[in-house]
Amino acid sequence: MSDKLKLFCGNSNPMLAKEICENLGIEPGQVHIQRYANENIEVQILENVRGADVFVLQTASPPVNEGIMELLIMIDAVRHASAARITAVLPYYPYARSDKKDKPRISIAARLMADLLEAAGVDRVLTMNLHSPQTQGFFRIPADQLDASPILCEYFRKKNLKNFAVLAVDAGRAKWAANYAKRLKLPLAILDKRRRSDVESAVVENVIGDVKGKHVAIFDDEILTAGSIMAAVDTIRKFGAGDVYAACVHPVLEGPAMEKIRASSLKELVITNTLPLPPQKQDPRIRVLSVAGLFAEAIKRIHKGESVSEIFE
Amino acid sequence: MSDKLKLFCGNSNPMLAKEICENLGIEPGQVHIQRYANENIEVQILENVRGADVFVLQTASPPVNEGIMELLIMIDAVRHASAARITAVLPYYPYARSDKKDKPRISIAARLMADLLEAAGVDRVLTMNLHSPQTQGFFRIPADQLDASPILCEYFRKKNLKNFAVLAVDAGRAKWAANYAKRLKLPLAILDKRRRSDVESAVVENVIGDVKGKHVAIFDDEILTAGSIMAAVDTIRKFGAGDVYAACVHPVLEGPAMEKIRASSLKELVITNTLPLPPQKQDPRIRVLSVAGLFAEAIKRIHKGESVSEIFE
Amino acid sequence: MSDKLKLFCGNSNPMLAKEICENLGIEPGQVHIQRYANENIEVQILENVRGADVFVLQTASPPVNEGIMELLIMIDAVRHASAARITAVLPYYPYARSDKKDKPRISIAARLMADLLEAAGVDRVLTMNLHSPQTQGFFRIPADQLDASPILCEYFRKKNLKNFAVLAVDAGRAKWAANYAKRLKLPLAILDKRRRSDVESAVVENVIGDVKGKHVAIFDDEILTAGSIMAAVDTIRKFGAGDVYAACVHPVLEGPAMEKIRASSLKELVITNTLPLPPQKQDPRIRVLSVAGLFAEAIKRIHKGESVSEIFE
Amino acid sequence: MSDKLKLFCGNSNPMLAKEICENLGIEPGQVHIQRYANENIEVQILENVRGADVFVLQTASPPVNEGIMELLIMIDAVRHASAARITAVLPYYPYARSDKKDKPRISIAARLMADLLEAAGVDRVLTMNLHSPQTQGFFRIPADQLDASPILCEYFRKKNLKNFAVLAVDAGRAKWAANYAKRLKLPLAILDKRRRSDVESAVVENVIGDVKGKHVAIFDDEILTAGSIMAAVDTIRKFGAGDVYAACVHPVLEGPAMEKIRASSLKELVITNTLPLPPQKQDPRIRVLSVAGLFAEAIKRIHKGESVSEIFE
Amino acid sequence: MSDKLKLFCGNSNPMLAKEICENLGIEPGQVHIQRYANENIEVQILENVRGADVFVLQTASPPVNEGIMELLIMIDAVRHASAARITAVLPYYPYARSDKKDKPRISIAARLMADLLEAAGVDRVLTMNLHSPQTQGFFRIPADQLDASPILCEYFRKKNLKNFAVLAVDAGRAKWAANYAKRLKLPLAILDKRRRSDVESAVVENVIGDVKGKHVAIFDDEILTAGSIMAAVDTIRKFGAGDVYAACVHPVLEGPAMEKIRASSLKELVITNTLPLPPQKQDPRIRVLSVAGLFAEAIKRIHKGESVSEIFE
Amino acid sequence: MSDKLKLFCGNSNPMLAKEICENLGIEPGQVHIQRYANENIEVQILENVRGADVFVLQTASPPVNEGIMELLIMIDAVRHASAARITAVLPYYPYARSDKKDKPRISIAARLMADLLEAAGVDRVLTMNLHSPQTQGFFRIPADQLDASPILCEYFRKKNLKNFAVLAVDAGRAKWAANYAKRLKLPLAILDKRRRSDVESAVVENVIGDVKGKHVAIFDDEILTAGSIMAAVDTIRKFGAGDVYAACVHPVLEGPAMEKIRASSLKELVITNTLPLPPQKQDPRIRVLSVAGLFAEAIKRIHKGESVSEIFE
Repeated sequence: MSDKLKLFCGNSNPMLAKEICENLGIEPGQVHIQRYANENIEVQILENVRGADVFVLQTASPPVNEGIMELLIMIDAVRHASAARITAVLPYYPYARSDKKDKPRISIAARLMADLLEAAGVDRVLTMNLHSPQTQGFFRIPADQLDASPILCEYFRKKNLKNFAVLAVDAGRAKWAANYAKRLKLPLAILDKRRRSDVESAVVENVIGDVKGKHVAIFDDEILTAGSIMAAVDTIRKFGAGDVYAACVHPVLEGPAMEKIRASSLKELVITNTLPLPPQKQDPRIRVLSVAGLFAEAIKRIHKGESVSEIFE
Repeated sequence: MSDKLKLFCGNSNPMLAKEICENLGIEPGQVHIQRYANENIEVQILENVRGADVFVLQTASPPVNEGIMELLIMIDAVRHASAARITAVLPYYPYARSDKKDKPRISIAARLMADLLEAAGVDRVLTMNLHSPQTQGFFRIPADQLDASPILCEYFRKKNLKNFAVLAVDAGRAKWAANYAKRLKLPLAILDKRRRSDVESAVVENVIGDVKGKHVAIFDDEILTAGSIMAAVDTIRKFGAGDVYAACVHPVLEGPAMEKIRASSLKELVITNTLPLPPQKQDPRIRVLSVAGLFAEAIKRIHKGESVSEIFE
Repeated sequence: MSDKLKLFCGNSNPMLAKEICENLGIEPGQVHIQRYANENIEVQILENVRGADVFVLQTASPPVNEGIMELLIMIDAVRHASAARITAVLPYYPYARSDKKDKPRISIAARLMADLLEAAGVDRVLTMNLHSPQTQGFFRIPADQLDASPILCEYFRKKNLKNFAVLAVDAGRAKWAANYAKRLKLPLAILDKRRRSDVESAVVENVIGDVKGKHVAIFDDEILTAGSIMAAVDTIRKFGAGDVYAACVHPVLEGPAMEKIRASSLKELVITNTLPLPPQKQDPRIRVLSVAGLFAEAIKRIHKGESVSEIFE
Repeated sequence: MSDKLKLFCGNSNPMLAKEICENLGIEPGQVHIQRYANENIEVQILENVRGADVFVLQTASPPVNEGIMELLIMIDAVRHASAARITAVLPYYPYARSDKKDKPRISIAARLMADLLEAAGVDRVLTMNLHSPQTQGFFRIPADQLDASPILCEYFRKKNLKNFAVLAVDAGRAKWAANYAKRLKLPLAILDKRRRSDVESAVVENVIGDVKGKHVAIFDDEILTAGSIMAAVDTIRKFGAGDVYAACVHPVLEGPAMEKIRASSLKELVITNTLPLPPQKQDPRIRVLSVAGLFAEAIKRIHKGESVSEIFE
Repeated sequence: MSDKLKLFCGNSNPMLAKEICENLGIEPGQVHIQRYANENIEVQILENVRGADVFVLQTASPPVNEGIMELLIMIDAVRHASAARITAVLPYYPYARSDKKDKPRISIAARLMADLLEAAGVDRVLTMNLHSPQTQGFFRIPADQLDASPILCEYFRKKNLKNFAVLAVDAGRAKWAANYAKRLKLPLAILDKRRRSDVESAVVENVIGDVKGKHVAIFDDEILTAGSIMAAVDTIRKFGAGDVYAACVHPVLEGPAMEKIRASSLKELVITNTLPLPPQKQDPRIRVLSVAGLFAEAIKRIHKGESVSEIFE
Repeated sequence: MSDKLKLFCGNSNPMLAKEICENLGIEPGQVHIQRYANENIEVQILENVRGADVFVLQTASPPVNEGIMELLIMIDAVRHASAARITAVLPYYPYARSDKKDKPRISIAARLMADLLEAAGVDRVLTMNLHSPQTQGFFRIPADQLDASPILCEYFRKKNLKNFAVLAVDAGRAKWAANYAKRLKLPLAILDKRRRSDVESAVVENVIGDVKGKHVAIFDDEILTAGSIMAAVDTIRKFGAGDVYAACVHPVLEGPAMEKIRASSLKELVITNTLPLPPQKQDPRIRVLSVAGLFAEAIKRIHKGESVSEIFE
């Protein structure tokens, strides 16, 4: 790999950055990130990057907003240090869920992030499994989106998938679940939750499709507080489901997520390392699959001008 | 309404423009659109627009690309004629379905349209029911999106909705259908079509949810060739459904659409006039609901600086 | 030629693109252009273009506006596929005649085209004989303009040019005609047409300069409906001219053009292939000169960083 | 006239600015323009312009480049002082003749001026008789172009125009001359100058059209060194012309211009005051027509949102 | 005050916002700022802002980076809600000290903030006492800078200023201190600290000017950790100074600041409320002067199009 | 050095350009700069620059504004001639002192220059000792700033620096002077000039620090009219100073500068060649140090992608 390829990372996921660099056979770029008493971040790039093909990695892990500012300042520093090209590597894209105006007078913050990245001087973006595929259209600069589905599917295919169904936890996730059901050649079920009428507060839960006596796999792009998934586990249990597995690309796992997961009857939770899993979140039932190899391959191809879509053929 | 509010329309939907103007109590702006022997379009605005709040209406009806060029040229003419503000009114947004990169090396053309509109000089956009809500994020300029669902729901509520279900023709449309099911307080069913296995070519059709003996309403944002909907009608008939209604906001109805609809057992097709319905597409079973009042109300509010979201409260 | 040089072409002039590629010793780039039932164009680039020096060829032949949209979408697809540089190759520049505001409140559409091309992501433009030389100033990006005059002059020099004159069909074309007259060392004549007075409708035709007993060559940058040229042929015949030749770079030849040409006493019409000549327009008196070699040479030089102006020294 | 309309002027043509202000019934805006020992210009706007509709007048009179910098700095000062809208009023547009790339690797400086004006913060431009009409397309912002032809024609119509012809001094000016010939209903003649052959250095002068025994009026957009016009006077004299008048919109009159004019047999030189006529250039045969009324009318209409093109109907 | 003037504030300094609104006689704009479990901020503007002149106030108080993101998202929400104009009101400008490249390959983050604000859609900025006056040049949009010096000076003038001197804590602050010395007509002294030689670590402190037996006032634009000021107090005590007062516009007071201040012999610390003073930082020796009136006056003038510089005349 | 590195220079400092080229081992690029009778500048680049790494040198020497226009036009010509990258080399940055808004409604012209350079098409800037370090933040493009201090210090270190002090001529220059004092390990003194009171016109001069019996060196970034420095020489003489040396990077030396210098008792004036020293300014007491080697080294490193900051380590 040319010495003109450099990867710098912020404080959000140094383990993933290190693993990607190992895959690429390079050392992570030397950078000094300082936080002054006034909370101002100073990023100093410690090596010459003139004419280099620079990748800057930051994922949207807590502290999220601190991490975004760190990323923007790092990009600005790299740009003014005369890098030839800057690619922001964002394994978990910040504000990915703020992708539409579902209330009056809010910001489509995922689009704003794209604008801020461009303002700071990013030339291209490399990310993974955006919450909606349309988000790729928020960028005027080229944006490559990697897909962790093959990694998750490969893992599930190794299990005995007899008598399994794929469950969408609500209608909005049906398309995503259907995609996995097709790849794994499993039937699809959808959870349909709604209030019985305006006067009653009771929620009627209904499973569209058949889960009785079946093991169930729930796939999602991200798990946040684990609320919907854990409620789904309870519901399908009542409808007679067997073992329940959950899998997601981006394990945000904030708020009561870990408490709920630990209290649940979930058989296994399969995640990737787009977000770091701090010690307090580690659990024997959680299985982490690495996306480092995939990112390294994509970075190598971007650097060499080779096709990225070919990876998924 | 101030004489500083002006609405010009291209050749795509003059009837709708006229109806909107009647609602607003104004005359459509005078414009001369000429097509020379070399197919070059010349747009001449025939009245002074300096300092005016100009709305330019064009919908994505055939000839679609001709219409886009006409729109861009009209906007450029209005801008250089010193309008104070230009709002593109796009009842059916062009290239709305090209909203994601589902194949390698294609254009997200819905985003490109936004870029072209901004390049031509549009200050804001007013549209209706984008194919995906994320498309609103393709605009850096303010973009208001109107929703025709209340108009369609109001029409259906007037029918006897006893023993009805709402059907999503595939998992990808489940969210949209669920929204209607909730508004109309009807149960939801989803059609799940897939190949039985790799070797067999046979498609297995399955209805997730219950339609037996029920009348069924299929809602979609647009109907293009009517292929999926007509296939769905056949399938649910086999599963014992009663009368089948279809409804959409944007009646594209191209290719074999009218032929299929006429040959089908569809009870009624409910559409709006975001796209014109030329004589050869008119049919006794097709019912057109007008969105002119809604657009007029939104234009009036935009012009006066009043809230548009309040319309939907 | 490096494998990093790629030329893709739209549907407007595949023969010219093929001929240019043959001159360059490369294969035209693989691209799939699809037109859906809703008339939406989808362009899929079928080969990797990351880091490539991509040329996208489209000429303004009918359907003109369809061709422009196809071009813009193709450019957007190439850009998001991470090409290193994109040059739009526009043998006949679209809307070239809309280069000034000769009526109130019209668009200078040739300038708008430049804006749209830049918005879509073009880095540079290569075109030929713009209707006015000022149009080159409509681009903020570098724009190379080729000149087909040497090709036309070389062809005429091979004829016996004794007793010839060059005719400008009106005062507005005098400069263009004078340029050819100087290159071919021939005298210049200008047709001056005007109404005798306000009350009379009669048009007085006058030839400024001498054509009596001379063969006449009429040069123009483009022939659209052939109206002015054919009228000129009749007039100068009355003034005693001998054989009349006409030549242009861009043979638009729309509307009654072919009918008029076929009915005329024109000796020969010399054109280039910047626009395709469909079978119904072919005629024994029409002579097509190819600009493919010139475009290939320019593309090669642009790709290699060699001077383009040197071609014309 | 509202107190929100303000006109500031640089050092290029304070008399014209004053006359325009008198027509508008306003006082010129207070501004202090200082030139320090290091030749740096400091512009201080001495009155509040927040929310004002500001017009900044500067014409391209010597020192031309000094004047351009003064203009750009004044615009920047006005913009940061929060004017609502800034219109650059440029009676004689700077670098108007640098409107095409007629040599390799030169700048189309007239386009660069447009870019610099936009970079400094101009919202719109008001100018008069650009050297080529295409130059209007160099602006992405709205640009109004006034025409002094009616003023010149009105003046000539008051003369006895019997036995007159209009002369174009070369083929490139034929279109401009033809326009005047038509307005004044006079015949057109064109001067055609060229070398007889490559070996001989002698220039053959030829008049296309008839000037013998006629009085001749030469119209041009600008007179620079008066070289072409004075040579034309001599030539047509030889061809038997009577009195010769010259007229132009922009009297640049630099280099040997005044010397040549004074030595010539020119009957009268008619100019406008888009450029100041310093005492050393004043001459009994020079007649200055004022464009102040026309500019004042245009500024009033721009300010009030009334049509500017109507002035010329 | 027109109902079209609206002021929204983030979480950084609601007390100041409230006080400014009271001065303006308006209610703070209704806004709902939510922080989800994934730390994503959602800002919903709860009232119609179409056509309004919106001011968004945020100061750089901890958590600083969280506050910047909140500000950018709020601006984006206001912009897409179609405000007529957005002014960011930034009493203490974020990253104000990162205004130069004093190390290789760092970001001039104060400039980046300006870029991000413009990218988010701000039309103008209102701030107070930037760390360097040049920072105003980081904005392409109009930026008004208020000065709290008159407020601080007015407070000090009320004291008995006999036998007082103004001290600059190092040469870099001499200009700022000299400004206060002139306004208060007091002599100036400068602290000059440096190492005696390269080998010795001892620092030689020297007071340039005379403080013996004098009371001393130290002025600064901001106090961060209070390190330099407290060291200065000790030093000048050794040099025989009497009472020591310190004053600054922006009381950042982070890290050991409060501890040092409480342990010091400082007579009084005078600050303003550009930053909130949380309970744990309050102290009997700290005197807070309000800038709310000044901000209210400036906002009123900006809204009404009146001069802001006049406030300081 | 690759033939793809080219340096073109305007008329401002051809000697420096020549010396830089000699250091780089290249010939200055061939360019023809013409000034027409109408004062319009035409720049023609006489050699192919496609794909070249072009440096354009211009310094802010008189005629300053003429030089800026020449520079902008040259950059535009190079850009449209398809250079790969354009670096403006500005040894003395134009309008460097206009870096803040110290009066109401003036332009921060140093920022405007940055905007104009970017508008013309510059990709990066290389300059030396900006009047304020913040000015570097005026550029969105990468801007390298060289420092001539080592060259000046090296020269002074060769003198016998015993019994020397460094003097700041006012508080505003204290920081700059302190920097030199530290580098040369000399004590610092500051001149403090002020009016005694409002009623008296007498100015009280005071030296903060000790100069009695010492030789004094005054350092500044630029000397304009030499007013402050010459006044300082007189003052410190009165306070008992010995020999007085002055040194600056940028010798503007306009207005009465040379007269004052020649009349003064200044021992030596040390300058660099960022600005040319025309014959009438040459003087035996003026010593010129060359920055050509430093610029050549920086250009070489920028071209090769090597670190520029390393030069100063």
